[in-house]
Amino acid sequence: MSILKEYEPIFYPSSVAVVGASSNPRKLGYHCLKSLIDGGYGGRIFPVNPGVLEIRGYKAYPSIAAVPDRVDLAIVAVPAPSVPSVFKECAMKGVRGIVLITAGFREIEDKSGSELQSEIAAIANEARMKVIGPNTFGMVNLHANLNASFTPEFSLVKKGGIGLISQSGGVSHLTAYLSMHGNVGFSKIIGLGNRCNMDFADMLEYMAEDPETKVIAMYIEGVDDARRLVDVADKVTARKPVVAYKVGRFPASNQASYSHTGSLAGKYEIYNSALKQAGVVTVYSCTELFDVAKALALCKIPSGNRVVILSGQAGPGIIVGDVCEDNGLILTSFSKETQEAVEKLLPPVAMRRNPIDLGPAWHDSETCERLVNVVSRDENVDAIVICAAYASANEPLLRGIGKLLRKFAKEKTVIGSFPSPTNVWKKEKVELELADVPVYPTPERAAKALVGLVRYSEALARKSSTNLL
Amino acid sequence: MSILKEYEPIFYPSSVAVVGASSNPRKLGYHCLKSLIDGGYGGRIFPVNPGVLEIRGYKAYPSIAAVPDRVDLAIVAVPAPSVPSVFKECAMKGVRGIVLITAGFREIEDKSGSELQSEIAAIANEARMKVIGPNTFGMVNLHANLNASFTPEFSLVKKGGIGLISQSGGVSHLTAYLSMHGNVGFSKIIGLGNRCNMDFADMLEYMAEDPETKVIAMYIEGVDDARRLVDVADKVTARKPVVAYKVGRFPASNQASYSHTGSLAGKYEIYNSALKQAGVVTVYSCTELFDVAKALALCKIPSGNRVVILSGQAGPGIIVGDVCEDNGLILTSFSKETQEAVEKLLPPVAMRRNPIDLGPAWHDSETCERLVNVVSRDENVDAIVICAAYASANEPLLRGIGKLLRKFAKEKTVIGSFPSPTNVWKKEKVELELADVPVYPTPERAAKALVGLVRYSEALARKSSTNLL
Repeated sequence: MSILKEYEPIFYPSSVAVVGASSNPRKLGYHCLKSLIDGGYGGRIFPVNPGVLEIRGYKAYPSIAAVPDRVDLAIVAVPAPSVPSVFKECAMKGVRGIVLITAGFREIEDKSGSELQSEIAAIANEARMKVIGPNTFGMVNLHANLNASFTPEFSLVKKGGIGLISQSGGVSHLTAYLSMHGNVGFSKIIGLGNRCNMDFADMLEYMAEDPETKVIAMYIEGVDDARRLVDVADKVTARKPVVAYKVGRFPASNQASYSHTGSLAGKYEIYNSALKQAGVVTVYSCTELFDVAKALALCKIPSGNRVVILSGQAGPGIIVGDVCEDNGLILTSFSKETQEAVEKLLPPVAMRRNPIDLGPAWHDSETCERLVNVVSRDENVDAIVICAAYASANEPLLRGIGKLLRKFAKEKTVIGSFPSPTNVWKKEKVELELADVPVYPTPERAAKALVGLVRYSEALARKSSTNLL
Repeated sequence: MSILKEYEPIFYPSSVAVVGASSNPRKLGYHCLKSLIDGGYGGRIFPVNPGVLEIRGYKAYPSIAAVPDRVDLAIVAVPAPSVPSVFKECAMKGVRGIVLITAGFREIEDKSGSELQSEIAAIANEARMKVIGPNTFGMVNLHANLNASFTPEFSLVKKGGIGLISQSGGVSHLTAYLSMHGNVGFSKIIGLGNRCNMDFADMLEYMAEDPETKVIAMYIEGVDDARRLVDVADKVTARKPVVAYKVGRFPASNQASYSHTGSLAGKYEIYNSALKQAGVVTVYSCTELFDVAKALALCKIPSGNRVVILSGQAGPGIIVGDVCEDNGLILTSFSKETQEAVEKLLPPVAMRRNPIDLGPAWHDSETCERLVNVVSRDENVDAIVICAAYASANEPLLRGIGKLLRKFAKEKTVIGSFPSPTNVWKKEKVELELADVPVYPTPERAAKALVGLVRYSEALARKSSTNLL
């Protein structure tokens, strides 16, 4: 069975039961059912709760067994001691996948938690049921309008090409919220929790095949089988970019990772280097995780590390230059023809070498357009970063150059930063991101996104040269 | 004359002339006049332009000399060659301060630019006129509703305690826009430009005395008199926090800094260390510049580096821990009493050591309140970072703990991160920032803001121990 088929009943179920569904907002089962209904899920929904007859207009069933139809996916939010019997019923019913929200398994201090997790894992494995969790906020498949989580607001996230595999509900939530400021969205957001029988490596393998996922982002605390994760990552990165944020770098936070997920975080440096060697782009904050994933989801992967910076104001250009050089990128030198053309377009009051300060052209979209045209065609340029902060005097700029940037984004890596008050240039920025030009609120974030792209391009080059041997 | 008196006519002028005012939106003089009028400036406004009789309902004058009243401040946006004669007229008229928007002085390739700047500097110095610029977007004094810049949108910035001295218009704009997402604002935003006779050191001395400025933020490309800047900073930081972002770390961007501002950026490391030694908190991005300034404007300066992390979800707590430990902060150990009290409040399914995962208390604001209460009173705690991502299940949390956080912010350093969809928890976050609890969109940004606070606290401790010798 192909891996896509194998996971289809979980990510594209034709029916979902919510075990522990409730009409009491103090229960997670209330929020799970709300997420599923409000998220616009199109399949059949079965609330399961022995105490009630109906919830939110849906007939409720006393048990999974009592559901009259097939159940593909069960979202389970009942107290931990009841989970084994629910799992047994699910197995009997032929349920194919489970999202286990309930906490109180191997993450707890008492060893009874680990024992309970072994018990349910055995039931699930025997019945070939895939389990996301326990101790997870759930999972969201945006393209299928399937919000199998306890947070209805995940359905506000835009549909897009980023697949997130996360070991923290908190990080999944905040990354989703970060994305809401922009126009790039997610394919799937998966909260692994304490990994009963679905781990990073499994989800990497699945997302590598998933046609809706263009780039895979991972937030990692600790893993059980690091060897397998690295091996799988090494295969996957040859086909799709993977970006990872590994935490637990220091003793106290490493200990906390262990407590949280019930697995050793391991030596940070060893993990991080192994991931890098496998071609994974490693990052150092949630913001960077999302920013780099967004660039990888939209941009053409650059063929090299030679950058040109065009900046409406000198400061942001210098900042981008600092970040690029700090990370081994090269501020390219133009060909003689390009340099001459730039000097023809810009008067000597502007910085006419890289980074280029548009000078008086910062509010002249025609000149700016010609400049983008000239530098984009230079064969010494692998990527373009263009920055301009809004001022009322340059208001037409983004409309003017937008079309051209959208055109060049097909041929070269183009990244933008166009800081503006909240309600200004909004439409223009949406249009750019729809045309594969990612836009960031500060020049440093734009530059770091580019660094991520170049890291992936370097990984690909390493891989293809190894294959030649 | 006190320094406040000396600069009063510039920052609190009773009348302003806009030389080069225009009704043509393609001219910067149009935008300057618009900023002044729309910003709600309460003094007298005199457009100066020989070609017109009236602009936007204001009588226009053919020259500064023709203005019938006293002029405190002149905003000048005329072509560079006309600037010397405008300066001479200003001197004759008794103008006290000038904001010189015009570019084309010592930043340009041709040496005629430097000569022109020397010429106008001589006129200004002779007449004791203070000049902001040339080659600047201008200056904004929020508390006086004085928008002396070419960007009317600066008037949307909130009034607050951050004074920004910046060598880049682009960075000033983007920092202002960054602030618009939150609830903390600026006292003054000053675009130094190419520094005719007002430099970083002058503005530092002024802002140190300015009662509306609580913290001074600087964006630095290059300075002419580094010695003086460091000496002044050393004095100022004993009284008020100063945070600086110095760019030009690498050859190409350093060269660009030179070209932009007409002054050598100098060896980055030497500058940065000297600033640090002077007690300045140095940062590495625009986001961090604003984030740290915001914390310094609101928070109690911590008495030490011992931190407690309370997190609604484990992941963000681990992230804060990583950033803290990476920067030499200590994840504190509680006293025996505190630890016992924590273990009484939280069941063994949560992480009950620092960083604390609220576990089941993440949606129970009463328990959460008790926890904050217990850990805040521990004398091993200098600062508290509290994080919780929104989920519909914990919606009441922030209302519940808000009051308590606001109370403790008077006694201890409290920093929060409460990621949420744009329109959720909005009011609660505003209330927290109004009560001196800065709130950040990600745990890493919250942690880095705390690092900035601890750096300043260490600088103060160094200073006071030196004074004892």
